[in-house]
Amino acid sequence: MAGNSFGQLLRLTTFGESHGAAVGGILDGCPAGLLLDLDFIQGELNRRRPGQSDVVSLRNEKDELQIVSGIFEGKTTGAPIAFWVQNQDQHPADYAEMKDVFRPSHAGFAYEQKYGIYDYRGGGRASARETLARVAGGAIAKLFLKQTGITINAYVSQIGTVKLEKPYGELDLSKTEESPVRCPDEAVSSEMVDLITKLKNAGDTTGGIITCIIRHVPPALGEPVFDKLQANLAKAMLSIPAAKGFEYGSGFAGVSMKGSEHNDPWAYEHGKITTSTNFSGGIQGGISNGEDIYFRVAFKPVATLMQLQEMINRQGEKMKINPKGRHDVCVAPRAVPVVEAMAALVIADHYLWAKTN
Amino acid sequence: MAGNSFGQLLRLTTFGESHGAAVGGILDGCPAGLLLDLDFIQGELNRRRPGQSDVVSLRNEKDELQIVSGIFEGKTTGAPIAFWVQNQDQHPADYAEMKDVFRPSHAGFAYEQKYGIYDYRGGGRASARETLARVAGGAIAKLFLKQTGITINAYVSQIGTVKLEKPYGELDLSKTEESPVRCPDEAVSSEMVDLITKLKNAGDTTGGIITCIIRHVPPALGEPVFDKLQANLAKAMLSIPAAKGFEYGSGFAGVSMKGSEHNDPWAYEHGKITTSTNFSGGIQGGISNGEDIYFRVAFKPVATLMQLQEMINRQGEKMKINPKGRHDVCVAPRAVPVVEAMAALVIADHYLWAKTN
Amino acid sequence: MAGNSFGQLLRLTTFGESHGAAVGGILDGCPAGLLLDLDFIQGELNRRRPGQSDVVSLRNEKDELQIVSGIFEGKTTGAPIAFWVQNQDQHPADYAEMKDVFRPSHAGFAYEQKYGIYDYRGGGRASARETLARVAGGAIAKLFLKQTGITINAYVSQIGTVKLEKPYGELDLSKTEESPVRCPDEAVSSEMVDLITKLKNAGDTTGGIITCIIRHVPPALGEPVFDKLQANLAKAMLSIPAAKGFEYGSGFAGVSMKGSEHNDPWAYEHGKITTSTNFSGGIQGGISNGEDIYFRVAFKPVATLMQLQEMINRQGEKMKINPKGRHDVCVAPRAVPVVEAMAALVIADHYLWAKTN
Amino acid sequence: MAGNSFGQLLRLTTFGESHGAAVGGILDGCPAGLLLDLDFIQGELNRRRPGQSDVVSLRNEKDELQIVSGIFEGKTTGAPIAFWVQNQDQHPADYAEMKDVFRPSHAGFAYEQKYGIYDYRGGGRASARETLARVAGGAIAKLFLKQTGITINAYVSQIGTVKLEKPYGELDLSKTEESPVRCPDEAVSSEMVDLITKLKNAGDTTGGIITCIIRHVPPALGEPVFDKLQANLAKAMLSIPAAKGFEYGSGFAGVSMKGSEHNDPWAYEHGKITTSTNFSGGIQGGISNGEDIYFRVAFKPVATLMQLQEMINRQGEKMKINPKGRHDVCVAPRAVPVVEAMAALVIADHYLWAKTN
Repeated sequence: MAGNSFGQLLRLTTFGESHGAAVGGILDGCPAGLLLDLDFIQGELNRRRPGQSDVVSLRNEKDELQIVSGIFEGKTTGAPIAFWVQNQDQHPADYAEMKDVFRPSHAGFAYEQKYGIYDYRGGGRASARETLARVAGGAIAKLFLKQTGITINAYVSQIGTVKLEKPYGELDLSKTEESPVRCPDEAVSSEMVDLITKLKNAGDTTGGIITCIIRHVPPALGEPVFDKLQANLAKAMLSIPAAKGFEYGSGFAGVSMKGSEHNDPWAYEHGKITTSTNFSGGIQGGISNGEDIYFRVAFKPVATLMQLQEMINRQGEKMKINPKGRHDVCVAPRAVPVVEAMAALVIADHYLWAKTN
Repeated sequence: MAGNSFGQLLRLTTFGESHGAAVGGILDGCPAGLLLDLDFIQGELNRRRPGQSDVVSLRNEKDELQIVSGIFEGKTTGAPIAFWVQNQDQHPADYAEMKDVFRPSHAGFAYEQKYGIYDYRGGGRASARETLARVAGGAIAKLFLKQTGITINAYVSQIGTVKLEKPYGELDLSKTEESPVRCPDEAVSSEMVDLITKLKNAGDTTGGIITCIIRHVPPALGEPVFDKLQANLAKAMLSIPAAKGFEYGSGFAGVSMKGSEHNDPWAYEHGKITTSTNFSGGIQGGISNGEDIYFRVAFKPVATLMQLQEMINRQGEKMKINPKGRHDVCVAPRAVPVVEAMAALVIADHYLWAKTN
Repeated sequence: MAGNSFGQLLRLTTFGESHGAAVGGILDGCPAGLLLDLDFIQGELNRRRPGQSDVVSLRNEKDELQIVSGIFEGKTTGAPIAFWVQNQDQHPADYAEMKDVFRPSHAGFAYEQKYGIYDYRGGGRASARETLARVAGGAIAKLFLKQTGITINAYVSQIGTVKLEKPYGELDLSKTEESPVRCPDEAVSSEMVDLITKLKNAGDTTGGIITCIIRHVPPALGEPVFDKLQANLAKAMLSIPAAKGFEYGSGFAGVSMKGSEHNDPWAYEHGKITTSTNFSGGIQGGISNGEDIYFRVAFKPVATLMQLQEMINRQGEKMKINPKGRHDVCVAPRAVPVVEAMAALVIADHYLWAKTN
Repeated sequence: MAGNSFGQLLRLTTFGESHGAAVGGILDGCPAGLLLDLDFIQGELNRRRPGQSDVVSLRNEKDELQIVSGIFEGKTTGAPIAFWVQNQDQHPADYAEMKDVFRPSHAGFAYEQKYGIYDYRGGGRASARETLARVAGGAIAKLFLKQTGITINAYVSQIGTVKLEKPYGELDLSKTEESPVRCPDEAVSSEMVDLITKLKNAGDTTGGIITCIIRHVPPALGEPVFDKLQANLAKAMLSIPAAKGFEYGSGFAGVSMKGSEHNDPWAYEHGKITTSTNFSGGIQGGISNGEDIYFRVAFKPVATLMQLQEMINRQGEKMKINPKGRHDVCVAPRAVPVVEAMAALVIADHYLWAKTN
């Protein structure tokens, strides 16, 4: 069980609310002897942090990570790695008005029905701030995967109506971080920024899509039936706040193809069996086949608008309230490191699992 | 771990290959005292069975279910319910040619890389026949859910290029089983049949989409972080053979909406808080909110074509082989009961879990 | 969860009641490529079987194992291994009288309180027959461990008041199977047989202790905190029907020693660090240290007596009934293969786990 | 997996080493709406704390607990409860000599064999300080159980050769905390103190036994096969540092009884079925039957002696070193709250589980 844990052999458990003392987690099962590059981990957190550019939310927290256990002389010891970031810059007063109302398309109503109690300040566990612990845990998983040669790169491929149509093979993914919206194509990035600016001025929001590419995965990861690699990637992605869809390889578009077009022809290159197309998305029968793994994650429009919004109270009375706080127009740019982190946790977990087959 | 198990409190473990003695499973955690309607369970298996109409595959097995344990005087006892279907109608000779070759877009290559051994007859655990155990386990979950009032209905909403555009609210889902392709709209069903016939004559295949509607779910199911209801539904669906994508509520299409359009306005009806639209798909913050849950699952074109196909052997030599065996043009019609079964397992598991909150 | 499953990477799930169609299980996670010696596995089942000698129970079932999945050309494929034994020789009429009464020190009352339903014939899941699936699963684990050099040997070290005082190092464990009570010391075995015969004639029963020795375990198995090797061994042993206690190394007797006597002095032999005594029982800090692992398991006197016994019905009325059926005087001799099987499952599971550290 | 987690529905994950920044944990799955009595929780930690009397170790840390998440307005919210205690009063210099040697009967050698790295300061995860997180998590479980009427009381029933022979029914358990060794019988307590003082003066140590009584458990807790209540209690107890044995009910002593003496006769009192003896220890077939649950846990003599001890270095060279630091003569008195905490976690977990049967 353990609804706040993810993974089997490499298991992340997270805790914390945006208006408590800290947000953090425990990463259990990380192999011993891994050199923990703290600058890299902090750098990943900084990528997730709000306020990185004027097109994303303005909340300015330092998000300084403290690692509390599981390290000795700079290396992992095999013991659980606990870490946290203290919360700062809280404005609980911003939420006073929210005490008795439910915001549209927010988790508050469902939480209260479930638990009979709801911390209305900042969304409780539904807060995007929880993803900070995923990014920290995922950064350690990335360090582990780095040793194996596996790389993970995500980028924004759609914001609202603006789409990046080019396949990932035609993009220079090293440019992703140069874009304020994490779109590696300069022209499309610029269109996306324009759209966000326009929406921001209107106090409105929109959705986005993130594409993620995992390379150099050895053929063997994933378990054939319920723990197919794509099944665990799908779970990982749909567990991210605001995610609404997941597809890998040819995905939804592949549905309308014929089998004769969709099958990936075999090729034989440099003494290795490979495929000349990759509609399979690097996974066959739930197991990685050595080709690139790629998938896309859809995120819904941000629910908190910077305009008067109609809410409802416990008595069923409607009222209009102007939300305070600091919110993004689109979550996709900041969700890029979260998608990478969750992917890293899945791949590293299956990497360890495959050692036991 | 346990890659062949699914669920936590209600846990299905499956076993069997299409060319072994039997395929079956164990359902553990089913509450005691549930009247097991064996006709209903067998009926669900019959829905999954090939050879139901001339537009689906011709393999004709009786798939007669035996329940071996966990029942006393017609009711569940709280003990694990083991069940199986014996395999019949095997033609291992059909697979002799496949011994040394890898078929395109099949699991064989990845299995052999992973395990160093591969049962080339019928796909091993990647066989669609494994889903029989899911349908049996899911049927028991449905019987459990029936007591709670929760209903689950899936149907085919796309085959190849033929799409059912009507939203589910405008369909009469009681007509699904009348359609040979399980599409409740007569006109679209007829178009789908035509497409399948045309592809069949050409020895080709295509993909499909299944839409699933879950109604009368009380607000409380799902855990806020990693075990969000949609995360476990996504895992369940992506664990089905040939599934390539999952989306719930507004899904991928919702990405290009504005927040002001996408937010579900609150309504107050019959003393109950509800919403007047349902882009959220019945889940907020990972927890059911009492509205209908609906999602879509994409299935890729069937990889086995009834035409000469290029294969490759372990030495990297290509050859063309005409596959034998009996295969569907599109998996979607027969996957409908599988989607329902996996959804039932997820919902029943979370229903039990919610009792402990 | 999954109360009918044991183990993590190597996971056994069992099913079946003594009066249903079959008893069996699924072993998931067994590495691929293991040659399954079916004679060995059947031989282990035969060791558990009643009716092996006139000092153990007379129920005579063949207990013929069928392996249904997970094997190809004699080797494991990495797929789940399902197996079962059909039940024969049932005398449900023996249990008709038991329908409305609770037997002393039996599980029936607790089952009925928990589930509201109870299969009074043969004890439901509390039947000793369930252990058959443990022995089958454990036999496969033993075959896996054999490749690593690890050996597991259990024997009866006490029956009722008759104790085998010699430490295991002074015994010839190859003689265990020659003894009708599985005690490798001929003189003590003979005393045990006498005691059992005397009790049998009196329609009475008694308890027993099994000692188990695990050799050649590499230093590395076990996880430091909650999954200490001894913690999982203790759970495994206390999950066996009728087990009442577990101790390893110096156990309860070590309590009254001084630290200066109890500490195991280091030795250095053949270029290897070892210890000259082994009060630690081969485990330090929850991790195997390379020395012999040894532990003892206490079993209570058999509750079913072959004499008039006072029972109680649901209305609280007492009555005396003469139990029918076939029962052992002491479970320990037949529990020897069960103890070994559970130990093998624990060690094999931790062996796989240690590959991921 | 997750070797640093315990429990299923109520799951404790712990972290921290005695020489890191903090020791703590996350308790996941605690039902919402529970009033967290912080004074009670801190009081439980204080019971575990060293330096409570001059017969236990002198390390004087405040062990002030901080609860970081999962509470709102004094009550649990259903979110994970994270907590920690900062480490103080560290004397790493005490351990400098230990850098290259292995202490007898300590975990260091096994850790280094397993992980290739070992934090020699204070024992890493093998430190008794880890149990602090168990006590904190267990205290919350106790608060939960308090609402159900279940009580848990442990006491010291043996130190070295000094035994408390009286059965628990003849003791006044409210006097346990008055005794410096947590033995509720004044005369025996006094003998124990004398023994400890004598051993302390000699720089020696000894073992102990803790007896634990759980009352008012409803008949229904425990799962019939692998998750028998006694199996999970045994795992919980053997996971405590220095524990060497576990027995419940009649335990090892019951082995030499006859079945006719050992069976618990039924009684009918106040309209309730009960038993007139309780050799079963409140559990039948793995399920609580409503009678008192009682068990005993053996602890080995403390390995660190306050005298010259022979150690060995990686090269196999022996040397004598005088250990520094602060150590108890016997762990049992301080382990009493740890035993209670682990028992509370097991019972609360099964209490939640039983809600789903």
